[in-house]
Amino acid sequence: MGRKIDTSPARGMRDVLPAEVELRDQARDVILATYRRFGYSHIETPALENIDRLVGSDGGDNEKLIYKVLKRGGKLDLGKADLTPDDLVDLGLRYDLTVPLARFYAQHHAELPRPFKAIQVGPVWRAERPQKGRYRQFTQCDIDVLGEPGALAEVDLLAATTEALAALGLSDFEVRLNDRRVLSKVAERHGLPVAEHERLFIAIDKADKIGWDGVAKELTERGFDAAAVAGLVGALRDGDPADLDDGEELATLEAIRADVAGQLGAAGSVRLDPTLVRGMGYYTGPIFEVAVAGLPYSIAGGGRYDRMIGRMLGTDVPACGFSIGFERVIALLQEARETGASMLPSAPRRVAVLCESSAHLGGALEVARQLRSEGFWASLVTARPPKKRGKQLDELQRHGYDGWLACGPGAAEGPRWFED
Amino acid sequence: MGRKIDTSPARGMRDVLPAEVELRDQARDVILATYRRFGYSHIETPALENIDRLVGSDGGDNEKLIYKVLKRGGKLDLGKADLTPDDLVDLGLRYDLTVPLARFYAQHHAELPRPFKAIQVGPVWRAERPQKGRYRQFTQCDIDVLGEPGALAEVDLLAATTEALAALGLSDFEVRLNDRRVLSKVAERHGLPVAEHERLFIAIDKADKIGWDGVAKELTERGFDAAAVAGLVGALRDGDPADLDDGEELATLEAIRADVAGQLGAAGSVRLDPTLVRGMGYYTGPIFEVAVAGLPYSIAGGGRYDRMIGRMLGTDVPACGFSIGFERVIALLQEARETGASMLPSAPRRVAVLCESSAHLGGALEVARQLRSEGFWASLVTARPPKKRGKQLDELQRHGYDGWLACGPGAAEGPRWFED
Repeated sequence: MGRKIDTSPARGMRDVLPAEVELRDQARDVILATYRRFGYSHIETPALENIDRLVGSDGGDNEKLIYKVLKRGGKLDLGKADLTPDDLVDLGLRYDLTVPLARFYAQHHAELPRPFKAIQVGPVWRAERPQKGRYRQFTQCDIDVLGEPGALAEVDLLAATTEALAALGLSDFEVRLNDRRVLSKVAERHGLPVAEHERLFIAIDKADKIGWDGVAKELTERGFDAAAVAGLVGALRDGDPADLDDGEELATLEAIRADVAGQLGAAGSVRLDPTLVRGMGYYTGPIFEVAVAGLPYSIAGGGRYDRMIGRMLGTDVPACGFSIGFERVIALLQEARETGASMLPSAPRRVAVLCESSAHLGGALEVARQLRSEGFWASLVTARPPKKRGKQLDELQRHGYDGWLACGPGAAEGPRWFED
Repeated sequence: MGRKIDTSPARGMRDVLPAEVELRDQARDVILATYRRFGYSHIETPALENIDRLVGSDGGDNEKLIYKVLKRGGKLDLGKADLTPDDLVDLGLRYDLTVPLARFYAQHHAELPRPFKAIQVGPVWRAERPQKGRYRQFTQCDIDVLGEPGALAEVDLLAATTEALAALGLSDFEVRLNDRRVLSKVAERHGLPVAEHERLFIAIDKADKIGWDGVAKELTERGFDAAAVAGLVGALRDGDPADLDDGEELATLEAIRADVAGQLGAAGSVRLDPTLVRGMGYYTGPIFEVAVAGLPYSIAGGGRYDRMIGRMLGTDVPACGFSIGFERVIALLQEARETGASMLPSAPRRVAVLCESSAHLGGALEVARQLRSEGFWASLVTARPPKKRGKQLDELQRHGYDGWLACGPGAAEGPRWFED
């Protein structure tokens, strides 16, 4: 016995309580089932990867956020001169599911079909500055098509993901498509040199937040030619398709757009958006995002990354992936549940089977078994004494039970429902 | 482009390929569904815990196997004099699900029902010496009843777990029960001092492996009195119930035995086994294991640990838990599947929809959608040229497809099945 100690989760992390886990499990099941129907296969990789595979993996800022694991036993040498953090660690927690997938495919490709369609659902870790609603461990939910060079991959990913989101009850999708090479061509035509395009893209990516005037201001301040910037921003803001070059990339995007629009039907819209950039440095072709009308952020995003696997395998393998923002989707589903708008099936009715003494445990077990066979969730609980029974029933109701049934000296009757 | 680099998983860890993940997902779903029907609630805690909560948590040897995480940013001071590994780390990966559960309950008990029945399924990490079939990341699958002092908890855990295992197709269960206090009394009566009982138990725990003569030899070599050891070992080997004291612990075990036997019926047997010890130091009452007849190891184990939560909360809370050896169960299910003895439902038939050119993608999407609506798993794949079609079909069959269908200039027909 003693004092209560601090039992909060580790900084920036969180525990998930029953009501939310139930929703998360339902969402995971619906997404997995949908992706399986599309021919994707679920795989798992370890949470830990050798540190040298995580560092230098084109993960941008995420590489700075890796949780690194101390070497164990004799491998740890604290007596070394000029000790650096790199001397101390050999493993790291994955910061996304794409780097482990590339390693998985390079390792196992001989045993896998080509193309290989992978599902991954699992936690990733990033030591980000803690902020409201963002945690240092969170779930990612990815599908990837490996070994398919054509737009069939993009279309399949978009069809499967919008169908999974629709099965969760989301609707009114806004799909945006782009290819950085399209944006690059427009910028080049307005006199902005290719070598500067990465910096340019980072500013354009902020148009949603700071507006086009903000983008123009930022670029000019960063030393880009003011007239060129004005021309480019004008073209992007007006969104005139005539500003886009009529090249192969644009034709591919248009084909993807038409096929995805056909699949979506009335469930949403799809358009080219030359301002879509996305953060990762590894994209090599089409990129895309899905938003739900009325919400200021996307709930899924992805793109083509044809050169990542080659760095591990020695031979390039075309690859294209799509990631559902699982935590954002769960937040939306929680809102829907609170407003009664959830499309997910509700759980069976929950019955507490109150056992009045150990002598009646056998009977209570049988009653609970019978209730389960009738489709209820039946939980065996020790009955409190008669004087405290009212409080016990209040508690049960508050914690989500729909009814109760007492097993004791008297004959057990069917469950009594709290709403009655 | 370049050479292939080493892409094997981190040492002692493994990737899980599609066929096994499908089985793991099925098993997880069946176990979760069964436990939910028994009134247990699924919760999640982060994989990382503050290191001082993992060290000194009564986890025995497991504490030596913790993966420890390097401090980040300014918290890491490599210039400190007499640097030790403890100075470098602030977090660790959980080595089981019981310590995090105790922290979770201490943190959230005010929002939880009493008793609280928890389900946890998730990975744990131990830096054990790599050996065949054992990995450094593996899945645990636990249920726990917190806040219930009576044997109802033990009976409920055993009923729920044997039902979950039966739902997976396992049968012929052998349930063994003990309470270390019963064993302790027998040993004391044979003249073996209480202060030495922990060491005694460790030797008795090996009776399965080294035989009773081996246990007697080990104890005598370790300095226990030879006559006392001979008396104790004789009593335990013969298993004469008259050797057991007729105390409260024994009465509780007998009551649990009778109720569990009633629940099991013809599905298995349950008996007191005074030699059952189990490894963890935190048990305070009944302990139990489930084996499947004919197999030399248990597939689930647990016990009562009434004093762990108190160390965090400041007030003792009775607690009892049961853990399915998920990896062992998966190995059994894989064997059953290979011999055609699996009871789990098989997946729907898989159809490859071969798209013969990008011009036919829209049609192929519609065909795939139609197949899915008929209950098939339909995967969109680019068709290889006619000359290579035979090889493509061979590959598809080898990778688990049941049939195929081509979408091109001709009219699409229904799927052709490989077995036809």
